[in-house]
Amino acid sequence: MSKKPPANAAWGGRFAGGPSEIMQRINVSLDVDKRLHEQDIAGSLAHNAMLVRAGIIAREDGERIAKGLAKIRDELAAGKFPFDPAHEDIHLNIEARLAALIGPAAGRLHTARSRNDQVATDFRLWVRDAIDAADARIRDVQAALLDRADEHAKTVMPGFTHMQPAQPVTFGHHLMAYVEMLGRDRGRFHDARARLNESPLGAAALAGTSFPIDRAATAKALGFDRPMANSMDAVSDRDFALEYLAATAICGVHLSRFAEEIVLWSGPQFGFIALSDAFTTGSSIMPQKRNPDAAELVRGKTGRFTGNLVALLTVMKGLALTYAKDLQEDKAPLFETADNLDLCLAATEGMVRDLRVNEAAMRAAAGAGFSTATDLADWLVRVLGLPFREAHRRTGALVKRAEALGCDLAALPLAEIRKIEPRISDDIYSVLSVDKSVASRTSLGGTAPSRVKRAVAAARKKYL
Amino acid sequence: MSKKPPANAAWGGRFAGGPSEIMQRINVSLDVDKRLHEQDIAGSLAHNAMLVRAGIIAREDGERIAKGLAKIRDELAAGKFPFDPAHEDIHLNIEARLAALIGPAAGRLHTARSRNDQVATDFRLWVRDAIDAADARIRDVQAALLDRADEHAKTVMPGFTHMQPAQPVTFGHHLMAYVEMLGRDRGRFHDARARLNESPLGAAALAGTSFPIDRAATAKALGFDRPMANSMDAVSDRDFALEYLAATAICGVHLSRFAEEIVLWSGPQFGFIALSDAFTTGSSIMPQKRNPDAAELVRGKTGRFTGNLVALLTVMKGLALTYAKDLQEDKAPLFETADNLDLCLAATEGMVRDLRVNEAAMRAAAGAGFSTATDLADWLVRVLGLPFREAHRRTGALVKRAEALGCDLAALPLAEIRKIEPRISDDIYSVLSVDKSVASRTSLGGTAPSRVKRAVAAARKKYL
Amino acid sequence: MSKKPPANAAWGGRFAGGPSEIMQRINVSLDVDKRLHEQDIAGSLAHNAMLVRAGIIAREDGERIAKGLAKIRDELAAGKFPFDPAHEDIHLNIEARLAALIGPAAGRLHTARSRNDQVATDFRLWVRDAIDAADARIRDVQAALLDRADEHAKTVMPGFTHMQPAQPVTFGHHLMAYVEMLGRDRGRFHDARARLNESPLGAAALAGTSFPIDRAATAKALGFDRPMANSMDAVSDRDFALEYLAATAICGVHLSRFAEEIVLWSGPQFGFIALSDAFTTGSSIMPQKRNPDAAELVRGKTGRFTGNLVALLTVMKGLALTYAKDLQEDKAPLFETADNLDLCLAATEGMVRDLRVNEAAMRAAAGAGFSTATDLADWLVRVLGLPFREAHRRTGALVKRAEALGCDLAALPLAEIRKIEPRISDDIYSVLSVDKSVASRTSLGGTAPSRVKRAVAAARKKYL
Amino acid sequence: MSKKPPANAAWGGRFAGGPSEIMQRINVSLDVDKRLHEQDIAGSLAHNAMLVRAGIIAREDGERIAKGLAKIRDELAAGKFPFDPAHEDIHLNIEARLAALIGPAAGRLHTARSRNDQVATDFRLWVRDAIDAADARIRDVQAALLDRADEHAKTVMPGFTHMQPAQPVTFGHHLMAYVEMLGRDRGRFHDARARLNESPLGAAALAGTSFPIDRAATAKALGFDRPMANSMDAVSDRDFALEYLAATAICGVHLSRFAEEIVLWSGPQFGFIALSDAFTTGSSIMPQKRNPDAAELVRGKTGRFTGNLVALLTVMKGLALTYAKDLQEDKAPLFETADNLDLCLAATEGMVRDLRVNEAAMRAAAGAGFSTATDLADWLVRVLGLPFREAHRRTGALVKRAEALGCDLAALPLAEIRKIEPRISDDIYSVLSVDKSVASRTSLGGTAPSRVKRAVAAARKKYL
Repeated sequence: MSKKPPANAAWGGRFAGGPSEIMQRINVSLDVDKRLHEQDIAGSLAHNAMLVRAGIIAREDGERIAKGLAKIRDELAAGKFPFDPAHEDIHLNIEARLAALIGPAAGRLHTARSRNDQVATDFRLWVRDAIDAADARIRDVQAALLDRADEHAKTVMPGFTHMQPAQPVTFGHHLMAYVEMLGRDRGRFHDARARLNESPLGAAALAGTSFPIDRAATAKALGFDRPMANSMDAVSDRDFALEYLAATAICGVHLSRFAEEIVLWSGPQFGFIALSDAFTTGSSIMPQKRNPDAAELVRGKTGRFTGNLVALLTVMKGLALTYAKDLQEDKAPLFETADNLDLCLAATEGMVRDLRVNEAAMRAAAGAGFSTATDLADWLVRVLGLPFREAHRRTGALVKRAEALGCDLAALPLAEIRKIEPRISDDIYSVLSVDKSVASRTSLGGTAPSRVKRAVAAARKKYL
Repeated sequence: MSKKPPANAAWGGRFAGGPSEIMQRINVSLDVDKRLHEQDIAGSLAHNAMLVRAGIIAREDGERIAKGLAKIRDELAAGKFPFDPAHEDIHLNIEARLAALIGPAAGRLHTARSRNDQVATDFRLWVRDAIDAADARIRDVQAALLDRADEHAKTVMPGFTHMQPAQPVTFGHHLMAYVEMLGRDRGRFHDARARLNESPLGAAALAGTSFPIDRAATAKALGFDRPMANSMDAVSDRDFALEYLAATAICGVHLSRFAEEIVLWSGPQFGFIALSDAFTTGSSIMPQKRNPDAAELVRGKTGRFTGNLVALLTVMKGLALTYAKDLQEDKAPLFETADNLDLCLAATEGMVRDLRVNEAAMRAAAGAGFSTATDLADWLVRVLGLPFREAHRRTGALVKRAEALGCDLAALPLAEIRKIEPRISDDIYSVLSVDKSVASRTSLGGTAPSRVKRAVAAARKKYL
Repeated sequence: MSKKPPANAAWGGRFAGGPSEIMQRINVSLDVDKRLHEQDIAGSLAHNAMLVRAGIIAREDGERIAKGLAKIRDELAAGKFPFDPAHEDIHLNIEARLAALIGPAAGRLHTARSRNDQVATDFRLWVRDAIDAADARIRDVQAALLDRADEHAKTVMPGFTHMQPAQPVTFGHHLMAYVEMLGRDRGRFHDARARLNESPLGAAALAGTSFPIDRAATAKALGFDRPMANSMDAVSDRDFALEYLAATAICGVHLSRFAEEIVLWSGPQFGFIALSDAFTTGSSIMPQKRNPDAAELVRGKTGRFTGNLVALLTVMKGLALTYAKDLQEDKAPLFETADNLDLCLAATEGMVRDLRVNEAAMRAAAGAGFSTATDLADWLVRVLGLPFREAHRRTGALVKRAEALGCDLAALPLAEIRKIEPRISDDIYSVLSVDKSVASRTSLGGTAPSRVKRAVAAARKKYL
Repeated sequence: MSKKPPANAAWGGRFAGGPSEIMQRINVSLDVDKRLHEQDIAGSLAHNAMLVRAGIIAREDGERIAKGLAKIRDELAAGKFPFDPAHEDIHLNIEARLAALIGPAAGRLHTARSRNDQVATDFRLWVRDAIDAADARIRDVQAALLDRADEHAKTVMPGFTHMQPAQPVTFGHHLMAYVEMLGRDRGRFHDARARLNESPLGAAALAGTSFPIDRAATAKALGFDRPMANSMDAVSDRDFALEYLAATAICGVHLSRFAEEIVLWSGPQFGFIALSDAFTTGSSIMPQKRNPDAAELVRGKTGRFTGNLVALLTVMKGLALTYAKDLQEDKAPLFETADNLDLCLAATEGMVRDLRVNEAAMRAAAGAGFSTATDLADWLVRVLGLPFREAHRRTGALVKRAEALGCDLAALPLAEIRKIEPRISDDIYSVLSVDKSVASRTSLGGTAPSRVKRAVAAARKKYL
């Protein structure tokens, strides 16, 4: 700023610290990227060991570096690392600390490496860990759903379309739908993990290096499947972060749908379930009130997953290769999503394990609204051989009759039934109760309790 | 949790603190909403004064409450407030502290009020402050742009379409485009402020209250224009936050476009400007290198504005009235955006004030590529009376001729010109230089330096 | 393509029409921008008239142009305009048609104008019309809400927080919340209209023009408040479209929240309302079923509003000035949103006008769950002078007692009540019914029927 | 509507067709979902064949149905199918047509099936085809990139960080970065395909069916890997569409980054490449101008990919199970994205194949800005054994000296060099030219031409 034209002196006054203070504030990323510290040290250790083995740096220097890094790792683990915001990020903080601990040899660690491949490596390692954590958490939710689905394989409830009861299903069957959705979510995380698991280390600033490094060795040491094939790609793409955020947003949709159901089911209008005190907040004035806060927070937080995905898609979209400082904005949204995903999954597992089922309320709702009309129509097709659409029309007439008489289908006298279709026998009543209806849907993936039991067993084998 | 079925005992083990620990972690908002503390105390003071005036609470209680709140305000300002995460948010922290300070009278403050209208009030006040801060910051950027536009009202540079030079403009004119965009941004913030400036206080939980409160008085005390007209609306809508985030996202598009230009202009391919050390980071190895980090960070951070807008739109979209805990997720995205907007505006102002203009490079680029071809065509229309489209064709032929001869239009001999259109006189050269071109565009809003000067003067009057 | 190296011959084969066919397909915008035809002709007529008045083109040419444009307008209105995709957009189609109709004079219309300012003008005019249409439609929804709110100012229903009944409100009061939200939506559209209502015409390609045009005249002729002040801003910004999309997304949140409530209320679990056949679809098999398709479609379509806003924010964000072809992607998302907004508003108005209210179901739900507990607590504060928090605790004990006795608060014997607080008199019963509760909330904006009536009257004056 | 209160008669007037006309307009999806016709018929044929084999419908009925469907397929292929908007979607159109063609037997096709599983099946099949098309298109882009990378394995250009030249790379190496990105994009589509390739058919409305259907058979007939395991999941999730949109959005980021580079490179400031007439639009007035419209449209259209992803994430997020009409909004955004992805990939392939490289301009830019400073520093480390950070500092001093002398590093006299570091020998010049620099970066994934050639060969084997 020494050659700044005098005209600018004025505005310097308005910003206490001058332009450099603003720059420092907008530029600093330490508060965010300090979460990469374990990954950063692991990457440095692997790079250092390789440099020694390849004869690029001397063994003694390598040993000094390794010892210094180990000490720094301990300091960080113990919360005693002397962070200095003047070194804008975690990488420079560790580098400066290493120099302080072991002197000039520290400078050799950066041979054949650049912050560009270093941060890409650290971030991939972090996301990989986040994926593993998500996988374990989702598996726990599935385990909880499977336990409750097993317990409620026969518990009848309404199956809704358009939020209107359509056909009876079992609560176990309903829960198993989420086991499947979450299974695909795990698949997405799994695929994302496999795709990201390539090492950027050794790409250097952007062009590779003339030092005889062994990228396969560092890749292996860090658990990567192989080195990335192109150095420019290695330092400038963040599609692994986008894919993680996309998988999270889709998983968030599933969690939000379930949370929506929990909110509805636990209200008095549905009354299907009761959440425990653990996952609700009460009101000192209305002690019977149980606000489903945890479910609402899952619904709310998952909305932010979409926002964070959009943020990074937007940040990345217009950037020419290779590294640009815009990429610094990749971490905060991802960390925030990862933290909230963890909370949402834990809360969901907890609610599933903890909820009490009001079987009577579910059954009453399942039987209302002529919910076995489809069963009646299917009987007409199966037994009388009516075309499906014709059976539909005949059933409609019977429902109208029952409505007029103010009774349910199962309570409609046979005489009344025969006015509409004389060929109907009293065998018809065998399909008109909700239990019969549910028991009959034995097609693969259907809601029959026997099917649900088998589905639970198969899913346990597949997912747990 | 006491009646939790034994089956659940198992999973409790996996979560150190049990379900209630998860609930506590997902539920706590103190780290985020503590930023509302000033607003919260202001709201409480206004409510308290009104309760006293309306005779709803006793004068002595009111005085004790006011004194307690003043003390808490001091503690907060001094960083000495004893935050307790067990009280999940800032409101309960202050309430608990007040009780500790003044005893049971503290309980009277909550008469005819609920956390629902309280948090809505606090948040509106906070967003109002954020809008005022944004307005002042944008004004500063405009002031910087106006100073530099004034200084460079005559500095010729290429005007681009499709990133291809199309017609010469002046650098001052180019900067003035942003003054206009930012003017509309201020307009959006201004309108958002007017719309949000209604008081939710007194809506109570959701239905209003039976106490004879004076909502107009508390509204006035807090600088609101009037009380909100419907209590359910007051506690459940957050459109003021959405509107703020939308105004920010649009402003972010403007800042990002300018940042994109700064990044391009400061690279050697353009070489139009140089940023000072204050807004760049260098390379110890390439001391000539000046990475435009501040501009890149503006471009990156504004991408997150879109993400945060999407987050809250998504959170709000499916919620039935009135308050739902999902609304707790309204603050983090907004605070993050407000912080980053402040940084982006400060950095933009700084870069504008600080950049050095390479007039020679701008002029050279402005003259390349037959950029005065339109002037030539306009001359043919104006002087020879050709229809515009015909003049276009004739000009194309002349450009082709110049290209073949390897010279610019201004260097094309009259003899060559007349081969294509014999009626052209040597008056034509009066429009073929970039200075002449620029000077001629005197239409309102055009790039003629005289126009730019007038535009600067008008904008100073309008915006500063 | 004539100089294409032979190596490329190969791939040409795979694309039937060669590269130019791909280019034509990606480049053509006629199917989308033909919707600008009225605006395009209006703009041309205004420009033409000004050119004549300013002496830039001859009166006879001007007359021929005006006549030609009038004929084209008729052809377009009659659906007889000969669209030709070879002219990639609506502007070139009209230009070509004008040339065919009136010959070379057509070429003079483009004097001192460019497609860049022309399309910006057309698009602003179109969005202005869309805003006016939205305003009228929203007003209609408000009118419908006001009629029904008036009708149901006293109809008691539960007021929900966390989807749990919290306090009784009236259906009219609930509807009035949406009148307020929609009022702010109209405000946003109104502000957006005022901000966009400046004329880009005369900005020419990007730099203004040397012709002595009268931009104020064309602005006035097209109903703009003034010409835009900077030519580069005029042709390259689309913040008016972003602001429209943002206002729409926020309005969409309001419509979606109401649609969510309609879906819930019309299901048997709530049973608060019944939608007519006009806004539901049935099932041939379950004739009693009324799927709230219209409400679901409103909820679904408004989700796309957010997507379209994001699309344009993303498109705009990285563009250097001035015009870039990316801007062609501004219209499709906006047209789609405008069409769907119109449908959503019409459907919402229709549902509001058409729904039947099940007052008994609402009242029953309003009285359940000790919903007047707050009224009891307020009585303790008001009559006995207890601090609010203490009154809360005492009320909680009474609710627990009522729950134990299996009765509602209003049915709790005074003797039981006095066990918990001996000072309570039988005046307490005056606040424990839902009607009394509702009637008592007479604070400004509260749910008391008298307040709702006044709110309806005030809103009619303000909004209709 | 028969019992509509008289008050409503009024508004009926305003909507020409009354409420049912609005409902019809908001409800109809035929214009969008008619694109599913092939998938719909394939699904029906498979279902029909299975019903016959399982003995659920008679062979003769099955034959009649199959014949009718074949005829309908021909009608559709020939553009002669009598679409009727009164049947709101493609499924009902085909069903009605089948009834018209073969009579009541048509009604049997719907046995053990519902529109819910039918549309889910159709949509999965369509997305599967879209994935296959995308895969083929991306492969074509990779093939084009590989051909040009091979051709330009040695063509030197600047490698940028922060849009500032940092180190020389080869154009081939730069293009190979995109081959890798697109390879991962194909991986994402591939994984999405595997995950979606399960059959919903037979889930019926939501609960499965009591008919003895063979879901494995229909799954196999339609090329699905297996039936979906849960009927409720089958009809209500659309995560396969979300995953497709997410993969597209990420691929769009890659295409947009490349398009951004093409736009910059083809402008005169960079001048690295020239696009042919086929992918540019010109200006009649500036014949030398080549606007990179195709690249700009790629950049613009890919912005809408993000919007469409957000739209469907938002639509899905709050929906309770199972089918809701909101899901009708899943198709339009996805179809739009698929169409634009196809165009963007074709245009990108075309531009890659077609662009001419200006090697001289690339080389000149590569050599500017002391771009081999890193090579010098690496030499100091390798030959003199300096620690990396120390070598960095020494190099900085040399660059400053060269800058002061106004020459490039390669032109700095040895005497000058030795003033700063006396141990430097004239071997140093072996690393200071751009060709030497590039040739030296032989690490795996590095930019050395030999490496690029090997990378091209490996990628050809892997991707083509």
